[in-house]
Amino acid sequence: MIWVYLAIAVSILAFGVAAYFYQWVRRLPTANEKLEHVGALIREGAFTFLRREYRILALFMAVVSAILFLLFPSPIWSGGSIWDNVIMVAAYVFGTALSGLAGVVGISIATIANLKSATAACEGIRPSFLAGFRGGAVMGLAVVGTSLAGAAVIYLISGDPNIVLGFSFGASSLALFAKAGGGIFTKTADIAADLTGKVELGIPEDDPRNPAVIADNVGDNVGDVAGMGADLFDSNIAAMAAAMVVALPLGQIDFIFCLCTLGLLASIVGVLLARLGKKGSPSRALNGGTYITCIIFTLLTLGATLLCNYSLRLWGAAITGMVVGVIIGVTSDFFTGDDKKPVERVARASESGPAFTILSGFSYGLLSSLPALVGIGLAALISYHLCAPLGEGYAMLGISTAAIGMLSIVGMIISNDAYGPIVDNARGVAEMAGLGDQVLTVTDELDAAGNTAKAITKGFSIGAAGLTVIALLGTFQEVVRQAAGVVIQFDMMNPLVFFGALVGAAIPAVFSAMLIMGVNRNSQKMVTEIHRQFNTIPGLREGTAMPDYARCIDIATVGAIRELIPAGLTAIVATLAVGFIGGVEAVGGFLTGNIVSGLLLALVMSNAGGLWDNGKKYVEAGHFGGKGSDAHKAAVIGDTVGDPFKDTAGPSINTQITVVSLISSLFAMLFYTCSLF
Amino acid sequence: MIWVYLAIAVSILAFGVAAYFYQWVRRLPTANEKLEHVGALIREGAFTFLRREYRILALFMAVVSAILFLLFPSPIWSGGSIWDNVIMVAAYVFGTALSGLAGVVGISIATIANLKSATAACEGIRPSFLAGFRGGAVMGLAVVGTSLAGAAVIYLISGDPNIVLGFSFGASSLALFAKAGGGIFTKTADIAADLTGKVELGIPEDDPRNPAVIADNVGDNVGDVAGMGADLFDSNIAAMAAAMVVALPLGQIDFIFCLCTLGLLASIVGVLLARLGKKGSPSRALNGGTYITCIIFTLLTLGATLLCNYSLRLWGAAITGMVVGVIIGVTSDFFTGDDKKPVERVARASESGPAFTILSGFSYGLLSSLPALVGIGLAALISYHLCAPLGEGYAMLGISTAAIGMLSIVGMIISNDAYGPIVDNARGVAEMAGLGDQVLTVTDELDAAGNTAKAITKGFSIGAAGLTVIALLGTFQEVVRQAAGVVIQFDMMNPLVFFGALVGAAIPAVFSAMLIMGVNRNSQKMVTEIHRQFNTIPGLREGTAMPDYARCIDIATVGAIRELIPAGLTAIVATLAVGFIGGVEAVGGFLTGNIVSGLLLALVMSNAGGLWDNGKKYVEAGHFGGKGSDAHKAAVIGDTVGDPFKDTAGPSINTQITVVSLISSLFAMLFYTCSLF
Repeated sequence: MIWVYLAIAVSILAFGVAAYFYQWVRRLPTANEKLEHVGALIREGAFTFLRREYRILALFMAVVSAILFLLFPSPIWSGGSIWDNVIMVAAYVFGTALSGLAGVVGISIATIANLKSATAACEGIRPSFLAGFRGGAVMGLAVVGTSLAGAAVIYLISGDPNIVLGFSFGASSLALFAKAGGGIFTKTADIAADLTGKVELGIPEDDPRNPAVIADNVGDNVGDVAGMGADLFDSNIAAMAAAMVVALPLGQIDFIFCLCTLGLLASIVGVLLARLGKKGSPSRALNGGTYITCIIFTLLTLGATLLCNYSLRLWGAAITGMVVGVIIGVTSDFFTGDDKKPVERVARASESGPAFTILSGFSYGLLSSLPALVGIGLAALISYHLCAPLGEGYAMLGISTAAIGMLSIVGMIISNDAYGPIVDNARGVAEMAGLGDQVLTVTDELDAAGNTAKAITKGFSIGAAGLTVIALLGTFQEVVRQAAGVVIQFDMMNPLVFFGALVGAAIPAVFSAMLIMGVNRNSQKMVTEIHRQFNTIPGLREGTAMPDYARCIDIATVGAIRELIPAGLTAIVATLAVGFIGGVEAVGGFLTGNIVSGLLLALVMSNAGGLWDNGKKYVEAGHFGGKGSDAHKAAVIGDTVGDPFKDTAGPSINTQITVVSLISSLFAMLFYTCSLF
Repeated sequence: MIWVYLAIAVSILAFGVAAYFYQWVRRLPTANEKLEHVGALIREGAFTFLRREYRILALFMAVVSAILFLLFPSPIWSGGSIWDNVIMVAAYVFGTALSGLAGVVGISIATIANLKSATAACEGIRPSFLAGFRGGAVMGLAVVGTSLAGAAVIYLISGDPNIVLGFSFGASSLALFAKAGGGIFTKTADIAADLTGKVELGIPEDDPRNPAVIADNVGDNVGDVAGMGADLFDSNIAAMAAAMVVALPLGQIDFIFCLCTLGLLASIVGVLLARLGKKGSPSRALNGGTYITCIIFTLLTLGATLLCNYSLRLWGAAITGMVVGVIIGVTSDFFTGDDKKPVERVARASESGPAFTILSGFSYGLLSSLPALVGIGLAALISYHLCAPLGEGYAMLGISTAAIGMLSIVGMIISNDAYGPIVDNARGVAEMAGLGDQVLTVTDELDAAGNTAKAITKGFSIGAAGLTVIALLGTFQEVVRQAAGVVIQFDMMNPLVFFGALVGAAIPAVFSAMLIMGVNRNSQKMVTEIHRQFNTIPGLREGTAMPDYARCIDIATVGAIRELIPAGLTAIVATLAVGFIGGVEAVGGFLTGNIVSGLLLALVMSNAGGLWDNGKKYVEAGHFGGKGSDAHKAAVIGDTVGDPFKDTAGPSINTQITVVSLISSLFAMLFYTCSLF
């Protein structure tokens, strides 16, 4: 049990470092009052959204809590101890609360760090980088610390990994809505701001005359910081929960906590070491930090494995997962990096018109799915075969361990990922507060590095979700085996499994479509509002009057909250419908189809979206006619199409897959005992 | 065996009716010499392409024949009878030859019927419809007659359904390349003609000054007529082959031939009855024919089942397949029909710019996958459970029978489908020969009906491919069982299966990407050539000089042939790689992943493409500003993106899935005996 306690200790250390960074960032100077004012607007908008979103979600969580209390782990009328049901509900609520808290922490720091990073940019790129990065690190360390400490505490109290599943379900169900809602908010504002500002009026990005500009910057925070934080919080817990269910009967719980603890420790060291060299590029600093963390993790876990006499095969599975994660990240980088062929080709295709921008970007997106899918498959295959000789049950544990390995450095990953929107925001507030062109040059360079880092971290998080969900499929099987004593198989020749697979494959498609349509509807509403403001507020166009920022924030908020519920519910209801109609075998097929099509669509959308974004930036950097050319117009259209692909639908699919898998595991026994077929 | 002979008899009847229609169409008058001349150019271009394509494919087929001779049904050095290997090669070559012949027949009649339909349009819509429809029916009856007679003859000679698999593989491998090559050709020319003609020069579609206009019309023939014919020829044979492998040990071969024979008979009656009423719309005439054929098929097979004492459960499975096919067709029609909500909404979204055209069309495409996937899953589930009580092996036969049922009316389907490009071409040649506006109005109305019919038939063919491939999965299992005595399972918890599924899921994505990129590259080359002609041929812009049509045809031909080989080979090589690395279980997973992602992508691309096309037509009909408005420009961009989606990649995926399944069944024993894992 030593590692469970060490997990709590290292989590506390992580909180300490996060608190130190928080104070460090907060004490940095803010350039002037205008900056302070703009920052306050963004902060207020972000917290207003969070408050309203959480209020709606609280209702949803209350309903789910009631259902959980009635049914899990066993129906209260079945004569079991009600105490167990109370613990399950408590774990669930605890999961949602911590996930919500992760969002609050993220936004708190991100809406300070953006101002500090902008201010520091007056002195040069190195201090500006450090402000942005340490801001991101607060989020990274807090999120991972919380998830690890949460899992450890719940395990210590209940001793039952199934309760950890409930905890994980709480985190995931909140993440599903937070990611979808934040994603809709951010792209609503982004698209509306670009369409009216850049395209119609020809004013620069982040121009304070644009009524949507504050909403756009709020969106970076609620979508990319809070949403993404909730997403990785949930992946991390899901991976731990899945591993714990399989590890408990094998007596390997300690090893799982060992991996997670040392992963967090490695991340802490990596974060503390990360610095921009005198002549180094920011993206080298970010990637360097990731690689150093990987090396530290490898060495620490090897030492612990030898010292505590853990199996070297299990250790190998973890390292396999980590290495495959890096490989997937690198291939994502190939397809979206602005110094690589695909970006150049998509930019070149834009010369022939927007249709070619779309077609070539989409084609590369399709191609990009191959290395990642093969990588995930290989990681599963290798880790399975590596651990199978250890005995029954170990093969499945190997896959879970690979997922844990891939997520081991998640602290570093979140830090890098949160860095992106912070410096993106820094650019925005610098422009609005008029800090000057030199500052914009610095923040632009930092922002470009953020985009590249984002591609790599997205590869990691999709890969980890893939492995986690395979592990959860194993969990599902294990739950049925433990409760009913039957080993269910998901044989594709069984038409129930096949039926489930086809329905499961359609769900990520429907889910994405609903989110994209939501963004479409909302941004058109916001465009109408922006036109109204320009037509009715005298002096707005000339910059002598202020726009009504709050109306735009309100449109994005109300719209996002209205759209997120149906999309999320569709995925949940479809799972329950398949389960109660077709039983556990149909659900097994459903999960398989869901993973396969979900990973495919997530990869295609994320990579195509990133590619279009960087293709546009490539043209803006002066290639193929540069800004204002026809190629640029085509590239902007590609970027607009890519926006909801990469920031709304693509990354939400991850969470959708995880939620569906967790629901299946929770409901496994109910599906087993009462289904139509 | 009575039905095997009846199959041959009804096939001969079908050939008779086809020959009668051929002569009937041929004897119709042709308006004038100019029309004759334009027609000759198209005909010549189409046959030139076919000749060059077949020459390259002959080389490929020779290599495959050599491999088949060496290895199948058993390696020649293993001491089996060489005679068996010769028969296998003969069946394969016979399959490719008949598939190639289907293309030749299709193009022969289509390049006559287009002129006759245009000429008949001078007298009104009814004779013009009949000329177009009977032209299509020649193709429909010839293709289905050939496939049925071919399967019957091979079965009579060899008595071995595995040889029918070889025959089917021949048909499919040719179809794969014919569909991909034709699809690349047609969209290369279509996009290049639209971009330069409609967008840059503002001249109407099919204007004879456009150097790509003949190539565009050639493309309709080689892509939509020859390619689609090869595709459905191959689906039909694959469904029969799959059913026969399962039916033989159960003594149900006769029932399979009964269904196919009566399906063809019903199609013959339906085709003979189809006529345009005095005030009827052409799309009602087409759909009416389909429904009548369904009813006749239901009654005939019910009678035969009762008379010959076949199982009513098997009959029920066939009818289930047919009904689900109709339902899938109707939902495809909902998502792409120009009197339905989605088309109107996509057209409306175009008012906000091309990015919204793309996003809303793509979202609807994603949504459209749900009913079709659920339908295919339900058809499999129902037919399985319907037939399972009949005894071991019957459940799988039920699924095969459902596929046969869905394809039962394929003669009618192909007739409707070939009608589309014929009347589309009639419009083109009427414009080029200057037959006047009244003729254009008639042909436009016929063309619109063709688009709607195409959506329905596409739904059918994707659905049938889905069921066929499930049946082929069963065949794959059966082949291994018969040869090795082992029932292999495709349990998703087996990491080999899972690895295969992930790789299999990526293949349709990669395959589509390669085709779309091929279209991109080629059409850009053709655009350059068109610009060159307009810049260097004096008087071309004014219409006093003729463009060099042949150069454009040549670019499309050479480009299509160069691009089709790598895409087709990728799918084939990936299957062999997975099989020799992971063995039969990995291949089982590979097929599953391939079906799931293939069906999803095919549905999304076909429906989104059709939706964009009709959205553009909706704007052109005068909505949201009509032709020349910003909404129109956006809708044209949507249509261009949709072109390779719906006519190159989407429909080729069908064939890719089938080919991969057939290869797996053929190589099953080799994978079983010599694989890495």
